[in-house]
Amino acid sequence: MSVLVVGSIALDTIETPFGSVEDALGGSAVFFSASAANFHPVQVVGVVGEDYPTDSLDVLRDRGVDLSGVTEADGESFRWSGVYSFDLNSRETRETRLGVFADFKPRIPQEFRSPRIVFLGNIDPELQLNVLDQVESTDLVACDTMNLWIDQSREALLRVLERTDILMVNDSEVRQLAEEPNLLKAAQWVQDRGPQTVVVKKGEHGAMLVDRDSVFFLPGYPLEEVFDPTGAGDAFAGGFLGYLASAEEWTPSELRTAVVFGSAMGSFAVEDFSVHRLASARMEEIMDRVREFRKITSFEVRIPEPERV
Amino acid sequence: MSVLVVGSIALDTIETPFGSVEDALGGSAVFFSASAANFHPVQVVGVVGEDYPTDSLDVLRDRGVDLSGVTEADGESFRWSGVYSFDLNSRETRETRLGVFADFKPRIPQEFRSPRIVFLGNIDPELQLNVLDQVESTDLVACDTMNLWIDQSREALLRVLERTDILMVNDSEVRQLAEEPNLLKAAQWVQDRGPQTVVVKKGEHGAMLVDRDSVFFLPGYPLEEVFDPTGAGDAFAGGFLGYLASAEEWTPSELRTAVVFGSAMGSFAVEDFSVHRLASARMEEIMDRVREFRKITSFEVRIPEPERV
Repeated sequence: MSVLVVGSIALDTIETPFGSVEDALGGSAVFFSASAANFHPVQVVGVVGEDYPTDSLDVLRDRGVDLSGVTEADGESFRWSGVYSFDLNSRETRETRLGVFADFKPRIPQEFRSPRIVFLGNIDPELQLNVLDQVESTDLVACDTMNLWIDQSREALLRVLERTDILMVNDSEVRQLAEEPNLLKAAQWVQDRGPQTVVVKKGEHGAMLVDRDSVFFLPGYPLEEVFDPTGAGDAFAGGFLGYLASAEEWTPSELRTAVVFGSAMGSFAVEDFSVHRLASARMEEIMDRVREFRKITSFEVRIPEPERV
Repeated sequence: MSVLVVGSIALDTIETPFGSVEDALGGSAVFFSASAANFHPVQVVGVVGEDYPTDSLDVLRDRGVDLSGVTEADGESFRWSGVYSFDLNSRETRETRLGVFADFKPRIPQEFRSPRIVFLGNIDPELQLNVLDQVESTDLVACDTMNLWIDQSREALLRVLERTDILMVNDSEVRQLAEEPNLLKAAQWVQDRGPQTVVVKKGEHGAMLVDRDSVFFLPGYPLEEVFDPTGAGDAFAGGFLGYLASAEEWTPSELRTAVVFGSAMGSFAVEDFSVHRLASARMEEIMDRVREFRKITSFEVRIPEPERV
C-alpha cells in the first residue's frame, strides 16, 4: 500500500540572494517523493521531455521511489524560472515553459491504482479529477492547488475538493479560495466543501492544521541559513503524507505529529537548491528536528498570583 | 514593587473593514497598563492635552492603575489616525498630530523611581534614556521602539539597548534594526548589543522569544473575529511584563509562560476598538486562553516505522 503522487517533474532555474542554479531537478512530484520516501514507498506519475537528465532521478530511485509511471514525451521538459526577494518571503516568476507538461494526460499504471494515499500535486484540477477517476481504491486523497487554478478553474477545483480528504495550501491560497481573510473561517469554508482536514502552509511562519474539532499550530523550523524556499511546500506534503502512510491509524494526534514531520522535511528542503539536502536527510536527523520542534514550542501553564488586582 | 510604564496617551481615530471610531482612548501607556494591571500594580508616566477626556481614564483607575504620573499640558492631546487593510495585516497612517507629546519631558515622581520592572514604551530614544537616568533602582528594563527611531535616532537607540534587558519589537523592526532578514540572526545581533532577551511580535503569526540558550515560538491566538489590531503589541507587552512582575523568579520557563500571557492579552486587545475588551477581561477568561494555547500547540513525538526505506 503505497503513496501515489501525480505532479510536475521540472527543471528549475532559480536565483536567490545566496546563489543561483540552472535546470536543477525540481517539480512537485520530485520534492514530494524525495521527502515521502523517508517514511513509505512512493509511486510517481508524471512526464518528462526528451531533454530531461533522467539519470539525475537516480537520487529518487536510490531511495526506493517507483518511477515506472513517469513517461517521456516528445518535446521539451517543463521549466520554471524564478527569483527570490532579499528576505526570501516573496518570489517573482521569470518564465514558465510548460513544454511536454502542456499536453500531460496522467495515465495511472494498473499496479498504482490502489494506493493507501493519493497526493494530487499542484496541476490543472481537470487532470486531478482524471487521476481520481483512474484510482480504483484508496483510503485518503490529499491535494494541493495554486492561485492560477483558483482564478481560472474554480469550478473544476470545487469538484476536486468534493472528492478530497485533506487540502494542503498556502495561507494566501486558502484566503483567495474562500474569499475570506480570516484563516480559520477560510478553512471552515473549505471544510464545508469536502475536505474535513485543511493544512495551511505559512512559509517561515509555520503551518496550521484545521481538523473537525480542533486547530493546531506549528512554527516554522528556526534556521539561520535558508538557501532556497522552492519545493518546501511539496517536501512538507511528502513528510506529512509519508508519515501518515506509515501510521496505523489516523487519529487527530497522528495528524498533528504528521504536521511536525512535514515541517521537518520542509526545513531540509530549503537548506540547499533542488532536492540535494532533502534527499540526504537521515532518519536520525529528521528525528532531531522533530524533537527540536517540541523544545521550541513547550511551555508551562501557571496561574499568576497578582499582588493586588 | 510596581511596573512603571512611560509611553503615549493618545486619542485614536481608526478605520478597519469592520467599523470606525473617533478620538478613542489609545496610546502605548494606555494599552500596556490596561493589560498589565491584571497581574500587578502599574504606575504610568505620560502627558495629555487640555482636551483629553480624563474621565475616560477611569477604566484604568478602576483596575488600580496609578495615574499620578500623568500630567496635563497646555495644548492639544496626541492624536493618531489610521486605516487598516482588508486582511488587517497592514495599515496606513492618515495623520499623526503630536500636540503636547512634541514637548513631552517625562518626569518620574519620586515614589515611582524604584519599580521592579520599567517598560519604555515606543517613544523617542532620548526620552527613554532620560527616563532611565531618573530611575534609581529596578530589576528589569524592557523597551519597545519603531521604524521611525531606528531610521532617525539609531545612535540614541543603541545607547538605550545597552541599558535594556528585554527588547520587544515587531519582526519588521528587528530586521530593520539589525539590517538582517533572518529573524534568529537579527535577534542575536540585538543580544550582542545589550538585551539578553528579545521578544519578536509577529502579529497574527504569533511571537518568538530568543533567550540566552533557547528560542520559543507561540502562534497568534486563533480568533474568528479580529476587529482592530491597534494596541495589540502594547497589550502583549503588558501581559508579558505584568506576568513577570507577579512571578518570583525569572527562569527561562517563566519567560515562556509570560509570552503566553502576553499573547492572550494581545488577543483581547484586537477584539474591540480601544481598550474596551482588554479592560473587561477577567482572570478566568485569560486563563481559558492560556490553556487553549496549550491545546493548539501540543503534539506527540513518535518515531515512524517505515515499511521500507
